Amino acid sequence: MVYGAIEAGGTKFVCAIGNDDLEILERVSFPTTTPEETMRAVINFFKRYSDQLESIGVGSFGPIDIHRKSKTYGYVTSTPKIAWQNFDFVGTLKKQLNLPIAWTTDVNAACYGEYISGYGKGLSSVVYYTIGTGIGGGALQNGNFIEGFSHPEMGHMLVKRHSEDNFSGNCPFHQDCLEGMAAGPAIEKRAGVKGQNLSENDPIWEMEAFYIAQCAYNTTLMFSPEVIIFGGGVMKQKQMKEKVQEKFIELINGYVDTPPIEEYIVTPKLADNAGITGCLALAKEAKLKY
Amino acid sequence: MVYGAIEAGGTKFVCAIGNDDLEILERVSFPTTTPEETMRAVINFFKRYSDQLESIGVGSFGPIDIHRKSKTYGYVTSTPKIAWQNFDFVGTLKKQLNLPIAWTTDVNAACYGEYISGYGKGLSSVVYYTIGTGIGGGALQNGNFIEGFSHPEMGHMLVKRHSEDNFSGNCPFHQDCLEGMAAGPAIEKRAGVKGQNLSENDPIWEMEAFYIAQCAYNTTLMFSPEVIIFGGGVMKQKQMKEKVQEKFIELINGYVDTPPIEEYIVTPKLADNAGITGCLALAKEAKLKY
Repeated sequence: MVYGAIEAGGTKFVCAIGNDDLEILERVSFPTTTPEETMRAVINFFKRYSDQLESIGVGSFGPIDIHRKSKTYGYVTSTPKIAWQNFDFVGTLKKQLNLPIAWTTDVNAACYGEYISGYGKGLSSVVYYTIGTGIGGGALQNGNFIEGFSHPEMGHMLVKRHSEDNFSGNCPFHQDCLEGMAAGPAIEKRAGVKGQNLSENDPIWEMEAFYIAQCAYNTTLMFSPEVIIFGGGVMKQKQMKEKVQEKFIELINGYVDTPPIEEYIVTPKLADNAGITGCLALAKEAKLKY
Repeated sequence: MVYGAIEAGGTKFVCAIGNDDLEILERVSFPTTTPEETMRAVINFFKRYSDQLESIGVGSFGPIDIHRKSKTYGYVTSTPKIAWQNFDFVGTLKKQLNLPIAWTTDVNAACYGEYISGYGKGLSSVVYYTIGTGIGGGALQNGNFIEGFSHPEMGHMLVKRHSEDNFSGNCPFHQDCLEGMAAGPAIEKRAGVKGQNLSENDPIWEMEAFYIAQCAYNTTLMFSPEVIIFGGGVMKQKQMKEKVQEKFIELINGYVDTPPIEEYIVTPKLADNAGITGCLALAKEAKLKY
């Protein structure tokens, strides 16, 4: 018996097959083009496993409809990717594969992966952020996702400007929110080159760490989580984790007693497998629930 | 059979007795002086009901230790009120009254009150803030408090400065965090008089609404709650609720579809009874649980 995972991103879809121990047996990826084209590739991949496949877990770019009682449950909703607006993702999978489907955001899936077998294992409260082309966050308390009228959109929280930062901000909705100031495109617009081409001593990383530390600070005061995990391309800059930890300590100024900083602000234990592992774990549970 | 409630604040303790319908049968208050003196008055009050009293719910100023497995569970911990530092609140009650005790923060208790019989009734995700001498917040999802390494300290989230605000901020830890910029003492320091003596057209209220709207904005993106309830003295200014709603709509700029604004950003349905009602409801549950 095997489980399926779909990490549906804005640039590519990663699909995988895993076993009961959440080991990844096969992994493929397809570019994100139109729903017709991309989903055809996805479905053809899973059909090869149709005699063993128990269920599928999906972590999708958003916003998405997560409310089981809603008429548009399982849809991608008001995404800027026009071809995907109001696309019935879960319905399409159900129709073609007729399996239980778990459905959540890409960041919730990664949070779940770290909760099941990464740095969130055994903890009651876990928050995960991805800092990349965009910024998104997901949170779990006692194994349940934090959600209400919809899923969170933590990446757009407000931040204070760094005193030496003249960049106007890049978010079409909020201009200088966290995503507008600290996602990959904001780094690139400031510097004129992509972040990965900057020296690790470039002063931009100080600003970047200041914004991400504010994210950690607000997350600490809102959730009191036991761990905050920062994934995504920007956090692959080796100097970032420590800089964020330092700035966080300055900002919080001893106000609350968090767990030790090196266990509290971390990068994903599962590295790039957090999302896929979370999708597999959610698929395994979906098999039991739906 | 009756239940006890203690709303333990920095200035006064409100104690009450309620019935199964959470109706308040008697209510008294005592000034917050030393633990010995204040707790003696509290215990004497409840001893009068010792033949009928089932349990007590406490909503306390903080920070407090909420972890049942901790050696200092039930203590007030690092409060600036020196006489109350490391005071064993729950232990003192248990020793004198030998009853099940529910123990949470003052804002969590008020959040619970609104969840059980106020504007949070029937909703899955509810956030409550008090904007007064300090700023504090509590959140519930499916009836469980949001918490992790400790309870939240939402009142100290970071805010962007209002462009016309020259006030340096009043928080001894973070200077110009939300509490530092928008709690009662910040209003008073800016204006030279207490908030309640300012005209409702004073421009300070525009700044105040801008800061509280940022709180609503961040809360929206972190929790996606179904309602955000703002209580406390500052929100008794009749003009505030509408101003906060307006500024929130500007800030969020259509990015997420919250519930209709007049049901989403509200003041407590239970007014000053939110905390006591929450304590009674928690007491009623403690009777069953502990």
